[in-house]
Amino acid sequence: MSTFSKTFVADLHLQVGNTITLRGWIFRLRQLAKTTFVVLKDCTGEAQCVAASEALREFHLKADDAVEILGTVRRDERAKRGIEIDIVSVKILNPSATPLPFNSSSNTEPISSDILLEYRPLALRSDLVGRVFRIQAAILRYFREYLTENRFTEIVSSKIVSGGTEGGTNLFAIQYFDRVAYLAQSPQFYKEHGVAGFERVFETGHVYRAEPHATRRHLTEYYSLDLEMGFIDGPEDIIKLERELLTCIFEKLNENHSTDLPSMMHVPTWEFSECMERLHAVHNRTDLIDDLDPEGERQLCSIAEQECGVAAVFVIGFPLSGRPFYTHPRTSTTAAGFDLLFNGLEITTGGQRLHRRSDLESALTSRGIEPSSFESHLRMFELGMPPHGGLAIGLERLTAQILRLPNVREATLYPRDRYRLTP
Amino acid sequence: MSTFSKTFVADLHLQVGNTITLRGWIFRLRQLAKTTFVVLKDCTGEAQCVAASEALREFHLKADDAVEILGTVRRDERAKRGIEIDIVSVKILNPSATPLPFNSSSNTEPISSDILLEYRPLALRSDLVGRVFRIQAAILRYFREYLTENRFTEIVSSKIVSGGTEGGTNLFAIQYFDRVAYLAQSPQFYKEHGVAGFERVFETGHVYRAEPHATRRHLTEYYSLDLEMGFIDGPEDIIKLERELLTCIFEKLNENHSTDLPSMMHVPTWEFSECMERLHAVHNRTDLIDDLDPEGERQLCSIAEQECGVAAVFVIGFPLSGRPFYTHPRTSTTAAGFDLLFNGLEITTGGQRLHRRSDLESALTSRGIEPSSFESHLRMFELGMPPHGGLAIGLERLTAQILRLPNVREATLYPRDRYRLTP
Repeated sequence: MSTFSKTFVADLHLQVGNTITLRGWIFRLRQLAKTTFVVLKDCTGEAQCVAASEALREFHLKADDAVEILGTVRRDERAKRGIEIDIVSVKILNPSATPLPFNSSSNTEPISSDILLEYRPLALRSDLVGRVFRIQAAILRYFREYLTENRFTEIVSSKIVSGGTEGGTNLFAIQYFDRVAYLAQSPQFYKEHGVAGFERVFETGHVYRAEPHATRRHLTEYYSLDLEMGFIDGPEDIIKLERELLTCIFEKLNENHSTDLPSMMHVPTWEFSECMERLHAVHNRTDLIDDLDPEGERQLCSIAEQECGVAAVFVIGFPLSGRPFYTHPRTSTTAAGFDLLFNGLEITTGGQRLHRRSDLESALTSRGIEPSSFESHLRMFELGMPPHGGLAIGLERLTAQILRLPNVREATLYPRDRYRLTP
Repeated sequence: MSTFSKTFVADLHLQVGNTITLRGWIFRLRQLAKTTFVVLKDCTGEAQCVAASEALREFHLKADDAVEILGTVRRDERAKRGIEIDIVSVKILNPSATPLPFNSSSNTEPISSDILLEYRPLALRSDLVGRVFRIQAAILRYFREYLTENRFTEIVSSKIVSGGTEGGTNLFAIQYFDRVAYLAQSPQFYKEHGVAGFERVFETGHVYRAEPHATRRHLTEYYSLDLEMGFIDGPEDIIKLERELLTCIFEKLNENHSTDLPSMMHVPTWEFSECMERLHAVHNRTDLIDDLDPEGERQLCSIAEQECGVAAVFVIGFPLSGRPFYTHPRTSTTAAGFDLLFNGLEITTGGQRLHRRSDLESALTSRGIEPSSFESHLRMFELGMPPHGGLAIGLERLTAQILRLPNVREATLYPRDRYRLTP
């Protein structure tokens, strides 16, 4: 696509000797007595532009002004990319206010996350914060590419639902004309229906949890990378898929985004009971009974790193009673479900689901739920529902763990929690 | 990826002479006195499997059972793809109920859309309905691929907001802990902020309109393909981008999904006033004043088809008063915004936006809105906001118009409207 006359910084090497128009932001400005250096930044990179200070004086250039620079492209071995621009003329398209709380070229590390959130455009224009969301976009891309290549079909399901998938707690209520509806906690039912139609489906979209707490790992609105596949033998098939999926995503990130992520092919799978034994043996934990806690997740990843070289572990066989009603059993008391812990945090929940209507009815009844309240869902299991399973990865958590960010909010463009509804 | 022992139908030609395991649904079943033909369908295609009727009798096979077939792959020139499977054994993984309202191999054309919606898995498994959502998935893929190749970065913005982008009508209210929040009508503000950070951004996600009517072109929840780009000269840059974007998507659909879609490179751009004149001259319309109606959209597409060979037209220069406050003016009374009409229906709204804080304040004031109520948004225009514009394409509408479906609900997996909240 070549719209209008703008040349991208990344294409300057094709324009040596030519006079071209750059459009972007003033990223850095160095005004010496005789010469002024303007580093212009656009979505493809940075270019150093030079002019006599006298010639630029009238423009009162400032960092983060949006500008157009007409200039001649010259080779200069001292400059980045070996290119420098001799400025012919400058036009300010829109000036930045002054003073700003920080500039896009500022070191954003000491700036509070509230300020970075309040001024998202400037933060995104900076290298450090911009990188977080460029990598997030790349994760999304590679996730979808991998699944499309592996015969999954993308679906778009509704986020306005008449009830919850997990029993009705933590739901946000919507006034839907003269009725009450809810924001979906998960596309779980829809992706299972999708499996009965397309065999393999995925969805990327928001899910909502009215979590009354605001920890550094919880959001009320997060972006879920969901997949579900039919005709499996057991949860090990889903674990195998996730190993290959994440390894593929990580390899592409290493190649294109200078990360240094490990192969996930040899991440171990440990039974929940084995995890308990390890936590007891290594960290003397005796307080955990039927679930892990954040500290336990960190400890298990650290044990896995020592044993297997990767700070990640698939934990399988949680107590069945703690998992949702649609979970397939592994034994009479354990679930054919798993969590993936990565760099100290749970980033995936997955597993095999029940595929027979009668089993789902028993599971509901044993939890004290009347099966008739799920009739429209149960009916889908009479249409040739294959054995199936799937998983959901929290995009913000995955991004945060990849970049080792301390708080999931730093991997969320506009986080929502108990107290935060803006910007 | 090669999980477990299942062979996909699409890979059978690599297995001639071998004994393999297929897993899928019984798509067609023809039981003759001596021989039974089972057409098995999986996510990659259909394969004909044969056995002596006597050998299969005990299984009571039915259409849409989920089955596993162990069989030997044999070349057979009479069969589709030149392959047939001699059945060694059959296992029913999950039987379908009987009777079903229809089968996946049924002709779905005479089946009411309510029944097709109620039994989505069966409908998706059918060729006709399945094709709609396979094409929708492909549109999503090609949209994102084109923009990624053209230096756009994907963003994920919040759908829970504290107010509307267009003044507060048609918003769904959410009980957000002890406050009221709303479902976002559009990612408009967020994608403008994104432009100030990344220059070019896109987002694919749900938007919500509490439309009290339920027409065949409106949904309360739809999926919006949004993009926004900085450093433009005017709305023509956005129109040029959309021409190229849609042409690219259509070419790939023609190649991979057997559609017969036109190039959009020569879709005309007509001023709103020209459209009025044409509608008057050709259809004697005198009742339209400051907007088009559905009939007018159909008539304009038909005129465009006669004049230019494609049933599509970009209409630019609508009366400014009817467009949102952030619209850039084209003249003192007309907007630098456009709609794209395609096959008789508006599928895109786009245009250039105001990029100066002072202009936005004037626009708000002239509409009787107090600028201070948009302060957190207006502040973003002080950070070096470039001249910018963008567009939003309704995914369900685009899908419906590509396939010439009469109702946008047929291009929606789980439609939501005034009266519909399930399945």
